Amino acid sequence: MNYPKGIKKEFISVKTYGNRGMNLEEDINNSNKYYLDCNIAAIYKKPTPITINKVDYKSRKDAVIKEAHFIVPSTTDYNGIYKGKYIDFEAKETKSMTSFPLSNIHNHQIEHLKRIYNMEGIGFIIVRFVRLDKTFLLFIEDLLNFIDNNDRVSIPVSYFNDKGIIIKEGLNPRLDYLKIIDNYIEGR
Amino acid sequence: MNYPKGIKKEFISVKTYGNRGMNLEEDINNSNKYYLDCNIAAIYKKPTPITINKVDYKSRKDAVIKEAHFIVPSTTDYNGIYKGKYIDFEAKETKSMTSFPLSNIHNHQIEHLKRIYNMEGIGFIIVRFVRLDKTFLLFIEDLLNFIDNNDRVSIPVSYFNDKGIIIKEGLNPRLDYLKIIDNYIEGR
Repeated sequence: MNYPKGIKKEFISVKTYGNRGMNLEEDINNSNKYYLDCNIAAIYKKPTPITINKVDYKSRKDAVIKEAHFIVPSTTDYNGIYKGKYIDFEAKETKSMTSFPLSNIHNHQIEHLKRIYNMEGIGFIIVRFVRLDKTFLLFIEDLLNFIDNNDRVSIPVSYFNDKGIIIKEGLNPRLDYLKIIDNYIEGR
Repeated sequence: MNYPKGIKKEFISVKTYGNRGMNLEEDINNSNKYYLDCNIAAIYKKPTPITINKVDYKSRKDAVIKEAHFIVPSTTDYNGIYKGKYIDFEAKETKSMTSFPLSNIHNHQIEHLKRIYNMEGIGFIIVRFVRLDKTFLLFIEDLLNFIDNNDRVSIPVSYFNDKGIIIKEGLNPRLDYLKIIDNYIEGR
């Protein structure tokens, strides 16, 4: 095999942050596809929210958006249904080795998850510490507990180790985060 | 007041399709805002699904989408939580006086609602017959029943009168469709 500009094979095959081929979003989307295909759960990523300013209607079927802007999401990225329960979560990666910066999650996303919790839905965040090669699920009640009792702008890894739950990685589903929800439903 | 091109006042104030100021989507969004503000339910319209081809990054905060395309949605427009239950629906208007054309709803949206029903969620469609000034809620099981037992490409109004439930219009919420869900949950 030829590698570009004489880069040695070692530098390509050994990835910087663990041997993972995909990012967190792809891992979750793949897992959700598995859940859906097996009729286990129907959980979808919402489309990116935008406002559309200009559209070219070449034909009725073939409209092209010519100007649009990203807008701040009012809810989380993922929601759906599992075992009759409403599921809602946000997923974020961080390159930090020590803590997860809270600025990664919008305030109204936290408010949204809190509301879901109060309405007896299941809300959480999934946080991947890329350099630690660890992916945690942290329920909204534990996230709120941290925020209410700390002035810090980021959540230390120790808090995830203590209150979060490690999501094990496998082949299919890539991230079996619903296994954690099983225990949660039983214990509630 | 001046009216354009000598049109008489009567022709402007009397709207063609009833005295409604807003369309179905606006009515539902307003109702959902009411439900959210009163902590009754959290139900959102999903953003329009698009694929983005070109983005101009003037600055990090001010990205402008320069080319994007609409894509066929894989799920319905609305979902959320009410009384701990997962809610999922599609809303459509028709100008027909006699029937609702099934081509208005994508096959995979019907498949999606069927899946939601099988997973113990609550799935339905809201159909407004604009010229009849009537808005119906039809549960997915009744929609499937029609599709499975008829070769017709549209659902006659009589079926909505028989199996659907009229959503009464009010001031706030504009369309109190969750009242119908109350009865449904009790009867299930």
